[in-house]
Amino acid sequence: MQKRYLLAPGPTPVPPEVLAVMAQPIIHHRTPEYREIFAEVNDGLKYVFQTKNDVLTFASSGTGAMEAATANLLSPGDRVLVVEGGKFGERFREIGEAYGVEVVPIVVEWGKPVEPEVIKQKLKEEGNIKAVFTTLCETSTGVVNDIKAIGEIVKAEEAVLVVDAISGLGAMELRSDDWNVDVVVAGSQKGLMIPPGLAFVSVSEKAWNLVRESKLPKYYFSFLKAKESLNKTDHPFTPAISLVIALREALRKMKKEGLENILGRHARLARAARAAVIALGLKLFAPQAPSNAVTAVKVPEGIDGLALVKNMREKYGVTIAGGQSQLKGKIFRIAHLGYVDTFDLIVAISALEMALSELGYKVELGAGVKAAEEVLLKR
Amino acid sequence: MQKRYLLAPGPTPVPPEVLAVMAQPIIHHRTPEYREIFAEVNDGLKYVFQTKNDVLTFASSGTGAMEAATANLLSPGDRVLVVEGGKFGERFREIGEAYGVEVVPIVVEWGKPVEPEVIKQKLKEEGNIKAVFTTLCETSTGVVNDIKAIGEIVKAEEAVLVVDAISGLGAMELRSDDWNVDVVVAGSQKGLMIPPGLAFVSVSEKAWNLVRESKLPKYYFSFLKAKESLNKTDHPFTPAISLVIALREALRKMKKEGLENILGRHARLARAARAAVIALGLKLFAPQAPSNAVTAVKVPEGIDGLALVKNMREKYGVTIAGGQSQLKGKIFRIAHLGYVDTFDLIVAISALEMALSELGYKVELGAGVKAAEEVLLKR
Repeated sequence: MQKRYLLAPGPTPVPPEVLAVMAQPIIHHRTPEYREIFAEVNDGLKYVFQTKNDVLTFASSGTGAMEAATANLLSPGDRVLVVEGGKFGERFREIGEAYGVEVVPIVVEWGKPVEPEVIKQKLKEEGNIKAVFTTLCETSTGVVNDIKAIGEIVKAEEAVLVVDAISGLGAMELRSDDWNVDVVVAGSQKGLMIPPGLAFVSVSEKAWNLVRESKLPKYYFSFLKAKESLNKTDHPFTPAISLVIALREALRKMKKEGLENILGRHARLARAARAAVIALGLKLFAPQAPSNAVTAVKVPEGIDGLALVKNMREKYGVTIAGGQSQLKGKIFRIAHLGYVDTFDLIVAISALEMALSELGYKVELGAGVKAAEEVLLKR
Repeated sequence: MQKRYLLAPGPTPVPPEVLAVMAQPIIHHRTPEYREIFAEVNDGLKYVFQTKNDVLTFASSGTGAMEAATANLLSPGDRVLVVEGGKFGERFREIGEAYGVEVVPIVVEWGKPVEPEVIKQKLKEEGNIKAVFTTLCETSTGVVNDIKAIGEIVKAEEAVLVVDAISGLGAMELRSDDWNVDVVVAGSQKGLMIPPGLAFVSVSEKAWNLVRESKLPKYYFSFLKAKESLNKTDHPFTPAISLVIALREALRKMKKEGLENILGRHARLARAARAAVIALGLKLFAPQAPSNAVTAVKVPEGIDGLALVKNMREKYGVTIAGGQSQLKGKIFRIAHLGYVDTFDLIVAISALEMALSELGYKVELGAGVKAAEEVLLKR
């Protein structure tokens, strides 16, 4: 018998009451019953996105919605700025390249946030930039970018601002409208607490102007088709019904807790996680601008990072994430994202202490848990 | 209290044991536990597709996979034949046009199957055709096309054959390999008996040759990326985990019943449905080549087709489908697709009799059920 604990940055744990609705008999989507659910979901998404703009829902993973943003906003040869400070920033570049868009990269050292001033300068230097792509939380490095400051800069320009908030939404503040974010991309399996399979895009009026001019090919991910259907509380293509119904349940929970409390909970858990790993003598990978969704930690000298993640999963049933791409084996990542509370974090830190000890790292057992508790006490 | 019965051609009813697994705690996809599930799913898909080719799985609705077939096989300006005999044939044309592909349509009267000879002739006349797009069952009209004969024709040509089997797979015979179908597109919420949100594409060696040359833009739906990951029993992007797990359960049921028995069950239910509506004095919309997945019936003179569907749903809790596009209000469609057995059909016919009677159509109550029973008796 081994209980399982999921602390990876997506998929994140799904609340039991949300899981339960997925076990109910499926209903048809072109019925009043479904339309009522979808209408409530659309309202709930606007609440979480902090926007008055429409939020479009697609049956896909978050990457589908990232691609949709490119295909719907741009035309062949358009020039865009892409902030590349991790795997998901790189993905925006790869998508742009796949679509024949001219990508001007802003390369940022992995583990560091982008300096908003650099974006300002690049926009001036380059001229004729249609869109700026960046991430709220770069999941691969555990960094949060200063979207408010970036929004202030891009607002004054012709370009639109596209933010990948896939792993940040519901964990970090993102005032889409107040901060002038034109397109926010999100996924279902992170702060929204449901399984993977839905992706979301909010679209500002400034962005709709680009959408109407866009010449890149699209069909399934067409914003115009999605919007036309949304006006009738419908979808252009069969939606992932059971996930939409799960989302209603999750959004009800989020409204009940309140966005401010949700963000406060993530901040508290993230502070505790950081305090714990520092108390264990470990080093944060992104100390300058650490995300509240996931804490990235350097694997200490002499320890096998892959073995650490494997040991935690196999011996203790605790799933965290390792590093991706160039960071494989070099960092590990503990998520505190979505349906996660005090003792999920305590479990993760406790498992980390035991696994590190087993792998030969000198660790004072309980020191991380103690440091976490000291933070968690101060509600 | 009103019990609900779903007899629409997608979503179709989901077996309780399949629903139950979706209520289990979510697991991470980059774990041995998930890989084992996905490996079993991949084997099961090959069984149902009757193919040795790889079957790629995407988190999307079926339309996403239809678009994927176009984006992955073709290059700008390529010429394709599209059989247009209903809404889903039209969709292939629309996708082709969105991608700058030159579409040569073969327009077929709605309710009729395509004559394979017409395809043969068109291929000769037009020359330089890269792909032929057609449907197994055209859900919008209840027609089944003769894919075996079409495969025999296209096999001899340079073109590849792409078949939309979204609503046909698991209901009608489709021997992908034996019949030389290069690309089979399918969705999850039909014969595969799980909720919507997954789409599938099988790809033959002949088709892979086109994929490697294709210049149309794609990223999320890239066959090459999906294949590269599949070789490691992985996905390039976060999969719709709970649906994949549900699919394993559904495929286990299908293997247990056996494909031949499944197809036999659909044939029997379809025969019963046709006998029932004819006994009620109604006319089949597609008598020449009726699908075993869905029976399309002409709305009788003087009856409001929309009111009929609405009455059955609201008064009796029985969801069937109306007509789409040009057939709106003119036909209704009773699906017998997926997790459907004897008494699901009896319920549908009984509700139909009562609803027709209420709307003022002269109907001998019980005559449809009697005719259905006469067929259903002969197992």
